[in-house]
Amino acid sequence: MNPLSRRTLLGAAVGTAAAASWPRSAFGAAPAGPLAAEITRRHDESLQRLQAWIREPCIAAENKGYDAGVPFFLQMLRDAGFQKVEQVPTSGKPGVFATLDAGAPKTLGLYFMYDVKQVDPSEWSSPPFEGRLVDKPGFGKVIVGRGAVNQKGPEATFLAALHAYRTAKRKLPVNLVLVAEGEEEIGSPHFGEVVKRPDIASALGKSIGIFMPSASQDPDGAVEMTLGGKGVIELELVASGARWGRGPSKDVHSAYRAALDSPAFHLVQALSTLVTADGSEPAIDGFADRARPLSASELQMVKRAAQRLSEAKQKELLGVKRWLHDEDWEHALVRLCSRPTVNIEGLVGGYTGPGGKTMLPTRTVAKLDLRLVPDMTADGALAALKAHLQKRGFGDIEVNMSGGYDPTTTPADSPFITAMEAIYRKAGVEPLLVPRSGGSWPGYLFTGKPLNLPAGHYGLGHGSGAHAPDEYLVIESSNPRVAGLDAAVNSHVAYLESLAG
Amino acid sequence: MNPLSRRTLLGAAVGTAAAASWPRSAFGAAPAGPLAAEITRRHDESLQRLQAWIREPCIAAENKGYDAGVPFFLQMLRDAGFQKVEQVPTSGKPGVFATLDAGAPKTLGLYFMYDVKQVDPSEWSSPPFEGRLVDKPGFGKVIVGRGAVNQKGPEATFLAALHAYRTAKRKLPVNLVLVAEGEEEIGSPHFGEVVKRPDIASALGKSIGIFMPSASQDPDGAVEMTLGGKGVIELELVASGARWGRGPSKDVHSAYRAALDSPAFHLVQALSTLVTADGSEPAIDGFADRARPLSASELQMVKRAAQRLSEAKQKELLGVKRWLHDEDWEHALVRLCSRPTVNIEGLVGGYTGPGGKTMLPTRTVAKLDLRLVPDMTADGALAALKAHLQKRGFGDIEVNMSGGYDPTTTPADSPFITAMEAIYRKAGVEPLLVPRSGGSWPGYLFTGKPLNLPAGHYGLGHGSGAHAPDEYLVIESSNPRVAGLDAAVNSHVAYLESLAG
Repeated sequence: MNPLSRRTLLGAAVGTAAAASWPRSAFGAAPAGPLAAEITRRHDESLQRLQAWIREPCIAAENKGYDAGVPFFLQMLRDAGFQKVEQVPTSGKPGVFATLDAGAPKTLGLYFMYDVKQVDPSEWSSPPFEGRLVDKPGFGKVIVGRGAVNQKGPEATFLAALHAYRTAKRKLPVNLVLVAEGEEEIGSPHFGEVVKRPDIASALGKSIGIFMPSASQDPDGAVEMTLGGKGVIELELVASGARWGRGPSKDVHSAYRAALDSPAFHLVQALSTLVTADGSEPAIDGFADRARPLSASELQMVKRAAQRLSEAKQKELLGVKRWLHDEDWEHALVRLCSRPTVNIEGLVGGYTGPGGKTMLPTRTVAKLDLRLVPDMTADGALAALKAHLQKRGFGDIEVNMSGGYDPTTTPADSPFITAMEAIYRKAGVEPLLVPRSGGSWPGYLFTGKPLNLPAGHYGLGHGSGAHAPDEYLVIESSNPRVAGLDAAVNSHVAYLESLAG
Repeated sequence: MNPLSRRTLLGAAVGTAAAASWPRSAFGAAPAGPLAAEITRRHDESLQRLQAWIREPCIAAENKGYDAGVPFFLQMLRDAGFQKVEQVPTSGKPGVFATLDAGAPKTLGLYFMYDVKQVDPSEWSSPPFEGRLVDKPGFGKVIVGRGAVNQKGPEATFLAALHAYRTAKRKLPVNLVLVAEGEEEIGSPHFGEVVKRPDIASALGKSIGIFMPSASQDPDGAVEMTLGGKGVIELELVASGARWGRGPSKDVHSAYRAALDSPAFHLVQALSTLVTADGSEPAIDGFADRARPLSASELQMVKRAAQRLSEAKQKELLGVKRWLHDEDWEHALVRLCSRPTVNIEGLVGGYTGPGGKTMLPTRTVAKLDLRLVPDMTADGALAALKAHLQKRGFGDIEVNMSGGYDPTTTPADSPFITAMEAIYRKAGVEPLLVPRSGGSWPGYLFTGKPLNLPAGHYGLGHGSGAHAPDEYLVIESSNPRVAGLDAAVNSHVAYLESLAG
């Protein structure tokens, strides 16, 4: 998988062009700030808390770890000072609703996920659920484990800031209202049930905005702030002889192909209509009709990003020689921010082992994700796909949507965002604003109706390997421009303090 | 997988229409014939020999079992009376060449395979490599194990006939020349190296024809004799970003799809051109140009087959409601005998586990088999496929052929075939001749140049489950029309005796 979290899609290439002109920050030294000493004193405790959490994985796709992982997470929130911590049942895995009333005038919203992506342990150089500290050349000491950067590490970093207030016996400058889900990695299919519960929606509605803790720095220390994310639907298309009424209803010898239809080819023919003949663009009828081009100001952001981000570095990271249609860097970034997509995540059907097996399989599955931009909707995309298939004689193919949600957008001039920018600048980092990530997160639940709140990600620190082997987060940084754990905790303290001011 | 061996593709549906009019055979009782008593006396020994062989699987796709399995097979041949038994090195797994000189005027050729198909033990009701005897309602006592019917069971049955001659101290009425391979289940990629070795080709050239022992009876006792098989090529099509020079050269997050080509969709678009828009017919340029329609006499055979074979039973066995193009039974059989095919055996790429994973995979594989009829050739089919892909902008897609060979045909009036027919009739079974199996076997090495020999399958007995779980062969038959082990052994004695006469 890619070495980047879905929330810092353009970030890893920030820097080479402009880094030299940035002020050097003091991240290599002890953090400054009102609670800095407390944070340093409690470094080991904060690290051990994260390690303990990594050892309690919840993986929705494998229905694994929830019995132990949910109570563990609830207790973490109580320990951090949330007075009310409630497990919220949904049609899927439980959500969480927690509040911390500090008696402050302002309330800050928080979005957490407590689940992690699947792993293939054989691909890891240290056990994925151990949280081992290792030396990573060029980075320093990093913690390796599933969730280290996506998203337990940054979340535990935020909780460490709360612990610092608590143990220093300082009043938190804002009240907190937190919602969390355990199905983010399968497309947040039931998180709406949490956010839309009337009392929870009401509590969130009183907040100034919602943020998710993030390790936002790239390996050079640069920070990219994305003002939104694409919507997404994830689904399986399943072609089967039984449902089609043609071809075999069980796997048979391939000799019969001469007199039988092939459900696998039926799926191939259906898939081939979903994109243009060269495979590049969505071709689902009506799918992209409501895709809105970037506004003039959004386009300006992307132009700036194209200047500041290193195309060569990004191409190297991705192992890519050419962008789609052989477009230039700026146009590739415009596409990332503004174009809907139809992607095959996986294909599986028939014999998949070594060599061949002369069979005519009855069932073949394509796993797809479709990314959506404003003003497209998840419901609209699903309906368009189904109608498209129906119209072309593929109505028998099952469309099993496993999760998805609408795009999300927060205005660049929201005070919630400008406050974050100010802290980054104070820390010596000039953040790069981009209108939208190429990836997705369910921020629409906050930014859409009825809440209409600003939402974003925030936090210093660096990690990588989300969804990939050897996912890591920098704990003790050897790069003076990259925050280690304590400096990252301090970035949260700084933000909380700024909100009070 | 299907419950039928590739060599009895139409066989399982023989019977319901005509069975009542066939004379009842004496298969339920002890077999008659010159060596019947010896065969009965040595029943347990014959069964144990087969069981021991099943416990020594050689599986080419998994490169498994050859160290022990090859010497085991060689010793079996020596024990059966072959005076010269030679392991023949090839570029792949070893072949075998064996001769038994009985001082007889005629020499009979034999083709054996000593390898078996892969298994998934979890799908079996008894261990696939044990050879357990179980009661199968409607059939009697059957041996269950991989290779029971395809092809160790029938081959061990033939060897039991040789043992009967040996222990009864009777002279074998013909000399034998045997060639065997250990890669039949991966498409016989190196068997030509065995057959074409000058001394082996010379020995085979002196034979009256080549046959492979087979359990040719369907569950009702009927026998189908196929006079040929289709050719086949098995191959993988591999689309990858690295080779294409477009899309990622490693798996990346699917968010990047907006600016990157998708090797998976590239493969889908390539596959979609290999068949007609409805997925039914081959559409590879030039692929089927030399496909020869059935001759008038071949068509007559198929018409007779359509009358005698039960369409309803075949549809039930396959789980099929409609034949291709909604054709009738006769036309479906014509297609099975005469049409080339393009089949997807399997598709595998990207994320194939439970749920989804938001990735843009760099590599996707389609496993295909293409069946060929006279006068198509394996080399011609491969060349046509490559040229087709090249012409359409898919020249970067790897075409990895793992095995294959030309079609094979033996004339119905060959004395080699008419002698088999005569024995079946004598046993009370009116064999159904079909011009060609829908499946494939490498008979072209015998029937093609330079040997130009007749080749076929022969033997009484019934089994099923080739390539499927719970593969079996009837040992003690509860159906008076189906031969058990001893009657099947006797059918080989009867054939050998008839050749001498």
